[in-house]
Formats: sequence, structure tokens, C-alpha cells
Amino acid sequence: MRTVDWVGGKVRFLDQTRLPFEEVYVETDDPDVLADAIGKLQIRGAPAIGVAAAFGVLLAVSPSQPSSAQDLPRRYLEVCDSLGATRPTAVNLFNALDRMRSVIRAASAAGGSELYNALLQEALAIQQEDVIACKRIGELGADLLTRRAAVLTHCNAGALATAGEGTALAVIKAAARQGKIDRVFVDETRPLLQGARLTSWELVREGIPVTLITDSTAGSVLRSQTVQAVIVGADRIAAIGDVANKIGTYPLAVLAREHGVQFIVAAPVSTIDVHTASGNLIPIEERNPAEVTHLAGIRIAAPGVDVFAPAFDVTPNYLISAIVTDKGVLMPPLGDALRRISVSA
Amino acid sequence: MRTVDWVGGKVRFLDQTRLPFEEVYVETDDPDVLADAIGKLQIRGAPAIGVAAAFGVLLAVSPSQPSSAQDLPRRYLEVCDSLGATRPTAVNLFNALDRMRSVIRAASAAGGSELYNALLQEALAIQQEDVIACKRIGELGADLLTRRAAVLTHCNAGALATAGEGTALAVIKAAARQGKIDRVFVDETRPLLQGARLTSWELVREGIPVTLITDSTAGSVLRSQTVQAVIVGADRIAAIGDVANKIGTYPLAVLAREHGVQFIVAAPVSTIDVHTASGNLIPIEERNPAEVTHLAGIRIAAPGVDVFAPAFDVTPNYLISAIVTDKGVLMPPLGDALRRISVSA
Repeated sequence: MRTVDWVGGKVRFLDQTRLPFEEVYVETDDPDVLADAIGKLQIRGAPAIGVAAAFGVLLAVSPSQPSSAQDLPRRYLEVCDSLGATRPTAVNLFNALDRMRSVIRAASAAGGSELYNALLQEALAIQQEDVIACKRIGELGADLLTRRAAVLTHCNAGALATAGEGTALAVIKAAARQGKIDRVFVDETRPLLQGARLTSWELVREGIPVTLITDSTAGSVLRSQTVQAVIVGADRIAAIGDVANKIGTYPLAVLAREHGVQFIVAAPVSTIDVHTASGNLIPIEERNPAEVTHLAGIRIAAPGVDVFAPAFDVTPNYLISAIVTDKGVLMPPLGDALRRISVSA
Repeated sequence: MRTVDWVGGKVRFLDQTRLPFEEVYVETDDPDVLADAIGKLQIRGAPAIGVAAAFGVLLAVSPSQPSSAQDLPRRYLEVCDSLGATRPTAVNLFNALDRMRSVIRAASAAGGSELYNALLQEALAIQQEDVIACKRIGELGADLLTRRAAVLTHCNAGALATAGEGTALAVIKAAARQGKIDRVFVDETRPLLQGARLTSWELVREGIPVTLITDSTAGSVLRSQTVQAVIVGADRIAAIGDVANKIGTYPLAVLAREHGVQFIVAAPVSTIDVHTASGNLIPIEERNPAEVTHLAGIRIAAPGVDVFAPAFDVTPNYLISAIVTDKGVLMPPLGDALRRISVSA
């Protein structure tokens, strides 16, 4: 399964809003369609958004409508900007676009096909690096699980969220192959139910036992002492190790500490944002209230209520047992560990 | 609004599964229909279930089919048993039925109409006591809120859950009348959305500002330091002060303590179960998995997953700042306070 791919000069993606009931792949050569798909969460997950955006830049110039050479860099840069305006929190998006912008600037004097090829190589590199990062995260993270027991995860940090096997789910899948996973408790993850729809679907396909719970059942599950680790992905990791991730991650981290359960964040280094000092500086996207008040087009809430619908929350570094990256496992103090990894990168 | 009432020899109740979109009152003289309504959560909320069950006992003997006098007590007791088998956690149900059983035993030698009248008086007393209890809880609880600020509640502990103004919502409504409520954050309360459907509806009708959030957004809201108290109801309070309440209450209590926010439980003394020593001995109902995997009849979860669907969780006494009862506000150590109130009752 390739969540996002470059096929025949188009971006091909699996429409995640229709999972788990329909597997519909969409192909587009229109950057606006792609930006819209990211905004609507047809493509979602921090690493997958980065890969999609990188491919999306290639759609700036239509092969059927050749432009003058001096126009090209400007048009590519404009599409970088419009893709960058889709979602504010996941830093992989901005990191991928920054890499594409660097290529545009470096190759702007070259001809159209040379610039295009340089951009294509960069986008494919971003994709391939993520595949490798997922694999490495899985291997490193599985080592943190020392016995056969249950784990708990939130949202979807799986193949659907990345170019590879996932981040948190790569750890769980690798650990399952090593016989360390009894069962995965999956938070349904309101409002958009990525746990119920996507993570459950991925794990059932892998033959890993899954128990779906409502988000607020996690407290009872962690209290039952059957869970050895909570493992989640990340949308942005600040310099001191605070982690922005799907709304509901922070309460899980508090509950994990309350019950002496390790709280593991799994993310590629492309999710680290050394330019954002701490979590309170990470921009938190607020979603459309209708995502809370409606489900499948049906109103489920009383008319007349206000809604507060942040898509993410921030887990402070002191609640995190380890951050598993493709460049190594970071242990507290996370700020120091992140500084070391950034220097060596 | 009377959630459950005795009207013309029948039980009349508001079907809460159809709120907030339709206000449908159902009248029945069939105790099986009433038991089914409790099981399906058409009638819900610990005090309201107790009141409904008390009235339901009166339906054991049809006025149109007179029985022999010696049959009557047995038939009333049978209906007590069937009503008692509907839901295991809320102790108000059992307390109300125990009171009805006592009347049956005391008046069993009397004629049919005398027994019926004694049972009717007892059921009306249970209802009236709850109305008064709600009022007193509101007054006592409002005193715990010392400034104008936001509060947060979970599920529905309002007029819909009681015979009166509610428990947690009685506190909030009384405090609002005193100008102490800026805004009420309401957890939607998955899976059955009592917060989104019922509490939001009640508070909008009262003209109190409501902000609906998903359950896992409560962590971010409490962290924002705008909330002065979390206020919830209870389904059963064990002798040492552990509280069973709607699933998701326990994580809220942990988060409230994390942020120095007082965690207030509001419940009538009929919710106290001195015969259950501690929270781990409270039977926790598990609901049908379809309540998690489906919403409004639509499947929302991937096929093939297991589901863990407890309806309640237990909040240990050390996380509770105060229990507001109709007989006074209980402060820690809650076991001692509960012992004192039981002795004086």
C-alpha cells in the first residue's frame, strides 16, 4: 500500500476519508486539488503530508502548457506557498517544502526539464528517506518493549500517515513480529476517528489483535496494568522536546505517568523543529466545528452550542519516556538529546 | 420538564435517545417496556433510573386484570427483580427498589388497593425527595465556586438524569444564577454523546454559554487555566468515597489534579452505597460494542476489531476535592465524612 505516490506525472493518493469502507485512489495533476486533499485530510499524517507536498510542487507546471524558462521558478515557488498554507501544525510539510524551495533556487537558472528533474529527484528522495526512516524507527522502537504485553496507541501513525510502515505503528508492527505484542488498544480518536477507521484497519490487515476503545476509556485500560507502553506519533517536536500530536495525546501522557507506563513518541527527524523553542510556540490548528457537531453529515450535537475544536495538543517533554527517531532513540533530558541529534545531522 | 413522571396510572418519560432533535414523551403501563427503556438509555441518569423503577413497580399489577390478594406481593416483587436486572452500576436503582420491597413486605397482608396506595406513596416520595435533593445540591455546590470563571462537566447530570434540576448541572445552574459561570465546557461523552446531545441541550435552554468539546480536548482546556472546577455526577459512591461515574470521569479527575483544578462530585445520598467498601468492588456495566462501532446506525469503525466498552469508570477518593450531597458537602477524608453522613441519615 502506497498512501501517496508519484505515478505517470501525477500524484496518486488513497482517499483516507473513505476508509475503511472503500479503498479509493485518486490521481491528480492539479496542485489545488492536492492542497484541498491535504486540507480535507484525504491525505493526512505528518510525514505523508510532507511527501505529498513535495510531489505537489511538481504539479506547478503543466507538461502540456510549457512556460517560458524565467517564469518557472516563480510558479514552482507559488505552489510551494499554497501547499504550505494547507495545515499549520505538522512541520514535515514545511521541511519538505523548504527542501523543494532550495532545489528551485539552486536550479532556477537551468532549463525547464533540468529543474523539473531536480525537483522530481528531491521529492522521490523525501519519499524514500521516509520509507527508510519508518523501517529504522520500527527496529529501534521495538527494542524498548521488553516483554509480551499490550500497548496503546492514539490516532493513526501508520502506513497511512507515512511513505513507509508508519512511525508508532512501525514500532508496533516490528514488535509484533518479535512476539512482543499481545494486543493493541486503539483510541477511536474523535472527532475524525482515525483510530477507529484507519489504525484498526491497518492492524486488522496485519493480523495483530486490536481492541478499539473510546478515547476516554484509555484511563481504565491504563489503570488495569496490562499495558506496557503508550506509543504515538508526532506532528512537530519543539527544540526542548515538547511534542504536538493529535488532540488527546496530552491526556494520555498524563495518564501513562500516573500508572508508570512508558510514553513513547515515534517520529522521523523531519518532524523535529529546532526553530521552535518549546511547545507553547507551536501553532495549533483549529478545525471546523462541524467535525465535532456532525458525523457522516448527520448532526449529533444540540443546536446552539459553541465548539472548541483544536486538532492537536502539546505534550510537555517531562511526560515523555523516549522519542524514537530514525537517527536513534532520544532519552530525557530531551532538549539535550535533540541538540545532539541536530548537530550530528 | 419532567424526565420521568406518574401520569394517569402510567409511567410517562421523555425518550432521551431522540434528544436533542425530537422531544418525544412515551407513556406505558407495561413494566417490560419500562425495563427495556432503562436498558436502552431512553431513561438514564442514576437518580432518574431510581425514580423510574419505583414507578415501574406500580405497573406490576394491571388495574384491568384484578388478581387474587395473595398473588399481589409476589407479582410486585417479580417486577422489582426484573427492573433491578436492567443496569448494574447505578445504586439508586437498587436503593429505590429496596424501598419498594420494604413497602411490599410491610403491606403484603393488606388488600390490593391499600398495597397499591402504599407503593404509590413511596414512589412519589422517592421522586419528591430527589427534586428536593437536587435543589439542595445546587445551593450547597454553588458555594464551592468562589469566582466568575468557566467550569467543565462530563456526560449529563442534569434535569434529564434526575427528577429535579440535576446534580452537577444543579450546581452549575445555581452558580450561573449567582453570576459565577462564565462558560460551561461540556465533554461530548462518547460513545452515546450525552454531553453533546443532552447537557448541551439543557444548558442552551437555560441560556448558559456552552462550549462543546471532544472528550480528549478536556486536557487542553484544563491546561489553559480558565476552568475553576470540574463538576460531575455519580452512579455509585463506595464507602471509602471512590466514585463510579460515566466512562471518562477518571481521566478528568487525574487531569484536574494535574492542573490544580478542584474536582467536585454532586450526588444525592441515594447514590451512596455503604455496603460496597471500595471502588474496585463496584460492578461496571459493559455495553454493546455496536455503541462504539456504529453511530446513528452507521458503521464508523473498521470491520474485524474487538471492542472494550465499559459504561463507567471509578475515580478513587484521593482525586476528589468534594462530594456535594443533599445532606451536606463532604470533604476529604471522604470515608470518614461518608460514615458520619450514614450514621446521621
